[in-house]
Amino acid sequence: MLIITTPIHSPADTTLDYDPETQELWIIDQTLLPHRYQRIALIELADFCHAIASMQVRGAPLIGITAAFGLAISLRPNSPHSAEQAYQALLATRPTAINLRWALDEVMAAIKAQPQDGYTAAIAMAQQLRADDIDYCEAIGLHGVGLIKQQYQQKQRSINILTHCNAGWLATIQWGTALAPIYKAQQLGIPVHVWVDETRPRNQGAHLTAWELQQAGIPHTLICDNTGGHLMQQGMVDMCIVGSDRTSANGDVCNKIGTYLKALAAHDNQIPFYVALPSSTIDWQISDGLSQIPIEQRHSDEVLTISGVDEQGVARSICINSHSPAANYGFDVTPARLVTGLITERGIVPANSIALAALREQL
Amino acid sequence: MLIITTPIHSPADTTLDYDPETQELWIIDQTLLPHRYQRIALIELADFCHAIASMQVRGAPLIGITAAFGLAISLRPNSPHSAEQAYQALLATRPTAINLRWALDEVMAAIKAQPQDGYTAAIAMAQQLRADDIDYCEAIGLHGVGLIKQQYQQKQRSINILTHCNAGWLATIQWGTALAPIYKAQQLGIPVHVWVDETRPRNQGAHLTAWELQQAGIPHTLICDNTGGHLMQQGMVDMCIVGSDRTSANGDVCNKIGTYLKALAAHDNQIPFYVALPSSTIDWQISDGLSQIPIEQRHSDEVLTISGVDEQGVARSICINSHSPAANYGFDVTPARLVTGLITERGIVPANSIALAALREQL
Repeated sequence: MLIITTPIHSPADTTLDYDPETQELWIIDQTLLPHRYQRIALIELADFCHAIASMQVRGAPLIGITAAFGLAISLRPNSPHSAEQAYQALLATRPTAINLRWALDEVMAAIKAQPQDGYTAAIAMAQQLRADDIDYCEAIGLHGVGLIKQQYQQKQRSINILTHCNAGWLATIQWGTALAPIYKAQQLGIPVHVWVDETRPRNQGAHLTAWELQQAGIPHTLICDNTGGHLMQQGMVDMCIVGSDRTSANGDVCNKIGTYLKALAAHDNQIPFYVALPSSTIDWQISDGLSQIPIEQRHSDEVLTISGVDEQGVARSICINSHSPAANYGFDVTPARLVTGLITERGIVPANSIALAALREQL
Repeated sequence: MLIITTPIHSPADTTLDYDPETQELWIIDQTLLPHRYQRIALIELADFCHAIASMQVRGAPLIGITAAFGLAISLRPNSPHSAEQAYQALLATRPTAINLRWALDEVMAAIKAQPQDGYTAAIAMAQQLRADDIDYCEAIGLHGVGLIKQQYQQKQRSINILTHCNAGWLATIQWGTALAPIYKAQQLGIPVHVWVDETRPRNQGAHLTAWELQQAGIPHTLICDNTGGHLMQQGMVDMCIVGSDRTSANGDVCNKIGTYLKALAAHDNQIPFYVALPSSTIDWQISDGLSQIPIEQRHSDEVLTISGVDEQGVARSICINSHSPAANYGFDVTPARLVTGLITERGIVPANSIALAALREQL
């Protein structure tokens, strides 16, 4: 497993690149950020499963496309795995993000449509999903930036946007979902400031979102997950934009644990709460997110230990409590009634069954 | 500054003891818990100011009584400080908890009532406040346990209580406020399980509440601050009990940052949300907590660094992000409309101006 280190990054970078010469998928090991930027190559099925389960790649779109390449690469000549084996192994890595199943299904369909050369068909489909994700995220950015622009025209000052977890370019291939409108605002010269929830237990806000924004030169402030409600009460937040791991056909949004609490606070303070997502994160089979979306429980060690760097800059994990048990639910569900709108690649859609059914017609 | 270490602790222990022989106040250095239990002696005014500002003592009741002793001890024969100097220095240590001003005012009144021996009068008053706090917390426990008992009689299973921050015996002299009903439930044999919010940035939940409950043998589970909303949606929380740093005359509750978010989730899921407090935390001068209670902003380092122990058990701090700015608001205000009731030493009082005015009549 080779390592490449490069110094400067922007939302136009890609998180994942397939090398057809070597048949390797190159990813960023996101567990090392922000302290170290390191690209690694995934080669075997086990590498792909480990990368997804251990969150070297995370974010619903990126998980889906990584899995698509994992399935495709597992079918190369002389592979010890059947397509079905690889599909099941990859599907089992994370239970909540719907893109995982969606992307695997797309690749399986491509294989079945071209049984004489499933490998080539699978690689082509994975490449297609990757290219589409870039287009979709850019479209989300262009639709979403209109909402920021509106606020700016009204208030004529920097617009304060709160986000939770990481739904930036690191969660996708390029641009991101929740952060795409923010990057587009920067391109248009609209001043923004982002409140970044640290997002315990894994601190994707502190480690990934803050890093992305700092690299892009976008003003931002890191806050504890407890803080957003107070900021909203005090008029210090103009809008919230978050991502989604799975959205039900009625508009309920499953996203990183804690999203629901911010949506409640936004609602209580009449602050718009938007969710940015490619339509591939919509689960059309589910009509009630609260009761039907499975919520991943991860190891309690993620709550009990926190990673960072010590005074010497050495990466280190510490334990905050070694005597008590802990519980670690990965996601929660924000009911559609708390969502102002869904920013999709097709435009901004109200979070309800009728509007989503109309969107489905267009896909 | 001497150090004493002892191994086993219970809610009947005291957090703060005055030694009249040596004129020292012995406290627990709570910044070292749960990794190390250490008592230290406060002697000079500067020791008291440092202990409060650095959060060696914290929790509104404990802050108040520590300050009371600080003012009293500063008046001992040959002290370089006037009462007024000591009062101002202590008052400036923390802006939000109202008990600080209240306790200092009580001691100042005692000094003025007995000008010929202000020192003796001040020590006597501080001792009185300490004794009262023990009585009040025990009374809060006895009133509050009725609410837990009711739920138990109805559900005939362990009652799940969510708490935020630390309002246990460590936040008071004995028993605590929010945890007092839980300790009393244990004494009555009522089974309880406590969801403990870790309470970033300072992790008083992970470091203090979890430690208290573990020492007392009460079943509990540590969770990230993001998790409570999901648990409430899934029926895994029967009631919330938190403390208060300052309560306005209309029943708005200022407490550790993040309390408001849990109150919103409790309200959204029809879960009772109680606040336990001695009446000394009520600020009768303030009729709107949201606009009138000053919210302490602490150093951003508390957000950017986290303390714990490494694999060798050595206490260590790590930095979670060394490139981004951070903001650190210590408290938020939960509007009275989200509070089911205030558990006071006089009984359970609805969170509104009329009920609180009636309580004031009794004091």
